[in-house]
Amino acid sequence: MQCASFYAKCAMKQTVVTAGLVVIGDEILSGRTRDINIQTTAQFCTDLGIELAEVRIVSDDIDAIVDAVNAVRARYTYVFTTGGIGPTHDDITADAIAKAFGVGLPIHPEARAMLEARWAETGNEATPARLRMARIPDGAELIVNAVSAAPGFKIGNVHVMAGVPKIMAAMLEAVAPTLQGGRKVESRTVSAGVGEGAVGDPLGEIQSRYPDVKIGSYPQMGNTQIMTYLVMRSHDIDLLERATGEVQSLVDRLHAEKNIVLPKEASV
Amino acid sequence: MQCASFYAKCAMKQTVVTAGLVVIGDEILSGRTRDINIQTTAQFCTDLGIELAEVRIVSDDIDAIVDAVNAVRARYTYVFTTGGIGPTHDDITADAIAKAFGVGLPIHPEARAMLEARWAETGNEATPARLRMARIPDGAELIVNAVSAAPGFKIGNVHVMAGVPKIMAAMLEAVAPTLQGGRKVESRTVSAGVGEGAVGDPLGEIQSRYPDVKIGSYPQMGNTQIMTYLVMRSHDIDLLERATGEVQSLVDRLHAEKNIVLPKEASV
Repeated sequence: MQCASFYAKCAMKQTVVTAGLVVIGDEILSGRTRDINIQTTAQFCTDLGIELAEVRIVSDDIDAIVDAVNAVRARYTYVFTTGGIGPTHDDITADAIAKAFGVGLPIHPEARAMLEARWAETGNEATPARLRMARIPDGAELIVNAVSAAPGFKIGNVHVMAGVPKIMAAMLEAVAPTLQGGRKVESRTVSAGVGEGAVGDPLGEIQSRYPDVKIGSYPQMGNTQIMTYLVMRSHDIDLLERATGEVQSLVDRLHAEKNIVLPKEASV
Repeated sequence: MQCASFYAKCAMKQTVVTAGLVVIGDEILSGRTRDINIQTTAQFCTDLGIELAEVRIVSDDIDAIVDAVNAVRARYTYVFTTGGIGPTHDDITADAIAKAFGVGLPIHPEARAMLEARWAETGNEATPARLRMARIPDGAELIVNAVSAAPGFKIGNVHVMAGVPKIMAAMLEAVAPTLQGGRKVESRTVSAGVGEGAVGDPLGEIQSRYPDVKIGSYPQMGNTQIMTYLVMRSHDIDLLERATGEVQSLVDRLHAEKNIVLPKEASV
């Protein structure tokens, strides 16, 4: 029994890989900036078969960052953070990560060399503000990227990245080969020209027969045509196709009953 | 001393009003949907002088919702949730809130009457799925709104709202008169035609002399002109104007040194 349980756990470990994202930035919480890094990270994780399980957005406050990072790094396979690694006084993510891990935050020689090479090209001096970007927690590895000379870094399971979307995306690409993906989740979408209320009961019945397929229902508003997108997701393609077939049959039946013909562009 | 402390706490309470937002939805975490409710809520809070201190995005999972709501409702003046109050099986927010507060989740007569009136208009039947939307935790007040017949609800300091952006916005408008705002935070923005590295040290020096003004630095990428927006925020308008004046002088000096003339549209 112990062996069976052990192997079951190993199998779980191989197939369920999770992540948490901590977005750091007053500009998101004040409403000044609409975040885009959340969706970028979510799609990145989905593509790699990693389940993004939780996102937290916190302010530029050391203790808030430490609390959030410590909570999620204990809970998920990987943690990503975005924001707060630039050269100004409000860039305190490196300080917070060093505090969360209880390590020092010295100037990293390789990071400094990379930055100085860029500054030599652009005619900039190594000011104290710019050198803040070379401070890397003890024991961390650099995340070098194509867009910015200022590196991110990885310590434990935590990947610390920039907030500027283009740099953030480049850093995700840089860390992708180092991540172990899980089993890929596939999804199928059925477009229904009815509201959620019309589809709720029979859809729930299908869900109860397919516990390994997650069925989501997403109503759309603002169009002339009432629309609900029904999204099926699963690791198991056979089950996914079977559940999707049943949902499509249900929607076809509802459309026939109500004489609904969807415009072509409404289907996804 | 006790009195002084008491009054200090009262003064704090009057001026610092905080909020946490819990976004519920697998579609955000999978990357399928880009959230917009976060920015809507952030701007709503800023307009009312409420500090949105934290956002959590969690999946359509009862325990994840319960944990997040219980964590934030203990910490902030107000909590808002979005998503998961529709008629389908994956709409489990009401169940989670009832569990978080340890109360029952009966059909609410007033909510049912509102829904039935709408169904009578649209020729829909009161199916079990549709009636899910009339389940309201014991002791909660309805959040009635102009867009949807399905109400949100308020229990304790937690405001439970729809995920569909138009309905969510209407529900925020409905609860606005019931919220106590804090002292309004004003902001000023100075546009600098230099990178963050050029402005970091002197900006940090200004920040150190204005602890009650929060100065943020936001680099822009993707334009031909290098740009950094410097955003000053404070409750205190006098201090805000003085700090902004110093930052503007700093930027004017840097522009003069480097012969930078900003295009008009770069200023905000």
